[in-house]
Amino acid sequence: MATKFADRMQTVHRSFIREILKVTEDPSIISFAGGLPNPELFPVEAMRKAASDVLAESGKEVLQYSTTEGYQPLRKFIADRYKSEKGIEVDPEDILLTTGSQQCLDLLGKVFLNSGDRVIIERPGYLGAIQSFSFFQPEFVTVGLENDGPDLNELEKILAMDKVKMFYAVPNFQNPSGLTYSAEKRKAVAELMAESDTLFIEDDPYGELRFMGEHQTPLSKGYLKDNCVLLGSFSKIAAPGFRLGWVVAESEVRDKLVIAKQASDLHTSTVSQRIMYRFMKDNDIDAHIEKIRERYRRQRETMVECIEKYFPEGVEITKPEGGMFLWITLPEGMSSMDLLDTAVAHKVAFVPGRPFYVDGSGENTFRLNFSNSDEEHIEEGIKRMADCLKDFFSAKK
Amino acid sequence: MATKFADRMQTVHRSFIREILKVTEDPSIISFAGGLPNPELFPVEAMRKAASDVLAESGKEVLQYSTTEGYQPLRKFIADRYKSEKGIEVDPEDILLTTGSQQCLDLLGKVFLNSGDRVIIERPGYLGAIQSFSFFQPEFVTVGLENDGPDLNELEKILAMDKVKMFYAVPNFQNPSGLTYSAEKRKAVAELMAESDTLFIEDDPYGELRFMGEHQTPLSKGYLKDNCVLLGSFSKIAAPGFRLGWVVAESEVRDKLVIAKQASDLHTSTVSQRIMYRFMKDNDIDAHIEKIRERYRRQRETMVECIEKYFPEGVEITKPEGGMFLWITLPEGMSSMDLLDTAVAHKVAFVPGRPFYVDGSGENTFRLNFSNSDEEHIEEGIKRMADCLKDFFSAKK
Repeated sequence: MATKFADRMQTVHRSFIREILKVTEDPSIISFAGGLPNPELFPVEAMRKAASDVLAESGKEVLQYSTTEGYQPLRKFIADRYKSEKGIEVDPEDILLTTGSQQCLDLLGKVFLNSGDRVIIERPGYLGAIQSFSFFQPEFVTVGLENDGPDLNELEKILAMDKVKMFYAVPNFQNPSGLTYSAEKRKAVAELMAESDTLFIEDDPYGELRFMGEHQTPLSKGYLKDNCVLLGSFSKIAAPGFRLGWVVAESEVRDKLVIAKQASDLHTSTVSQRIMYRFMKDNDIDAHIEKIRERYRRQRETMVECIEKYFPEGVEITKPEGGMFLWITLPEGMSSMDLLDTAVAHKVAFVPGRPFYVDGSGENTFRLNFSNSDEEHIEEGIKRMADCLKDFFSAKK
Repeated sequence: MATKFADRMQTVHRSFIREILKVTEDPSIISFAGGLPNPELFPVEAMRKAASDVLAESGKEVLQYSTTEGYQPLRKFIADRYKSEKGIEVDPEDILLTTGSQQCLDLLGKVFLNSGDRVIIERPGYLGAIQSFSFFQPEFVTVGLENDGPDLNELEKILAMDKVKMFYAVPNFQNPSGLTYSAEKRKAVAELMAESDTLFIEDDPYGELRFMGEHQTPLSKGYLKDNCVLLGSFSKIAAPGFRLGWVVAESEVRDKLVIAKQASDLHTSTVSQRIMYRFMKDNDIDAHIEKIRERYRRQRETMVECIEKYFPEGVEITKPEGGMFLWITLPEGMSSMDLLDTAVAHKVAFVPGRPFYVDGSGENTFRLNFSNSDEEHIEEGIKRMADCLKDFFSAKK
């Protein structure tokens, strides 16, 4: 006899992206499907030295249990960086270190969501957030993304609905679309949020990866004073293997998140926290991030140029000023799911857009990652995609 | 305006133990309160070398995202060790690496528990499990622990109740009591479980820390063939700072746990996994564990001897054959919560028993940790406790 699973397991599924990634393990496939940083840019030797030094000097503390909140000097480092890079004031006490910023989503779901509560999510929206919140059985309501941020009329209508617990947003170089909220939209969204009792969850894993255009101030602490949380991550500016992220939340919310985190994993790897802090302290992190920006800028430019050169007419693309993704829209009526089969046969892969739409739309969209391939592979991969698209377009005529 | 918390937050609280630990940060206090391994035994230099070597040789993979299931060679290492140390057959594919074994509890709660489902927990029971499951709003039902394992009559009655989803047990050197299930009890419990559709969750963080007596086979895979999961941890045999544990679960359950883990933190720190594997591969782990056993055996013997020498009549203690804790029972009507105040004034600390009893009993019990103090501090601390107890006993007369 077997034990029955909880009801919530009927509404959650394996990550579709992770399933695609299995297909792309074939080395002859050029994959624009994943969301991986370029490993060529990992500061391997500096991390090796940081690990060796911190274990030599503080080994007993590095290997022991520690507090749920996280390593105090690393929390202060993050707060200082918000001040210097983003111009916002953050109290180190308000920072909770987490096991990747993915864990923040789980903790926020635990702390805030009753079954049937409404969660606003961008259309298209980040799949990891959809998955994480789904465990708490909310009703998702989507707000359309325009080129400069969410559709304000839609947002206002949604905020007037009952039980709208949270709005999850990725205002910088969004995953999957690559879009960024303008200063005007940030201000307008903050005004709408301030009038509501809906929590604003601002996820910002890519904010430091701006390689062109104007810096934007976070909505949280920038335009919006309270009832907001701000999520961050070391995955894109240093390395994801540490699983190290954080959430900025004021005391009442932070206390609840700490209780949820104690129950979830006691605390985040002390080894990860201490190596990361040592790396940050002993190295010129700004110079390191500048190297990443410069590389991703070139890769993004190559991808956009090749798309404009090789793709058939009628395909729309976003042109992100940072981050790791761009977003393709095919003519209405075409299915990127169907295209994927052809593409894999042509040895190139991407992620179809539909899983990013909780309302089941987005059939004619897909996501391309430009951070994980060098320029040569980008050109070759886009050519392969273009061949598929031409076949695909003529078959549809 | 602030967003309302989820209903579940009314039933969960900060860990009482973690609050006591804050009091014990005063270095003049001898603390038997925590559950920390002895940091003198951490293999600091071997870990430093493992970290440096694995980053030098495989840095890009160590720092990158990886699979949710975990690093395959480490899963195989764990399976091989089950065979050699415990005599049970485990398929490496059935092992999911987790962010400490604490995460297994959260994942199992997510995958199995509907609000109102019943969870059987030992009386006294592990506080971390009570906290973790509480987020899923079950009804706890407790089964009394005798010196050789659970009260079988009680267990049989509970298993006959409705909606009994899981039985969470720590059969080796239980936290908090230090008690171990005998071979007879294991067999009898397995027989009762096999007749039920209740999942058996066997948590075994201390199993390798047996420093006297006979080795016991795990119930899972040993006495019980299916509908069971087995949890393990590197925290007590290597170091807890990595937050590295695992769960053994057959395919249908494991698949669901993987989905829950993807949503919780994508995967466990690759850095932690790869350093730990390298340490395990390059060092004589059996010799290392033998050193821990030998030290904890001496610390445990010192603690028992000092208790027998200094404590007043009428105090009962368990005499564990392994692990990190022993358990004290005061005469009926006495409160270990009251005793704690006196003890802290006498510069010694412990954990009162009541939080380990979900039924509100256990007022006259408390837990002592012997792994984290050397013999000199154990003797001094037990003398201080004895002074408190004598004052306390005479005040009660």
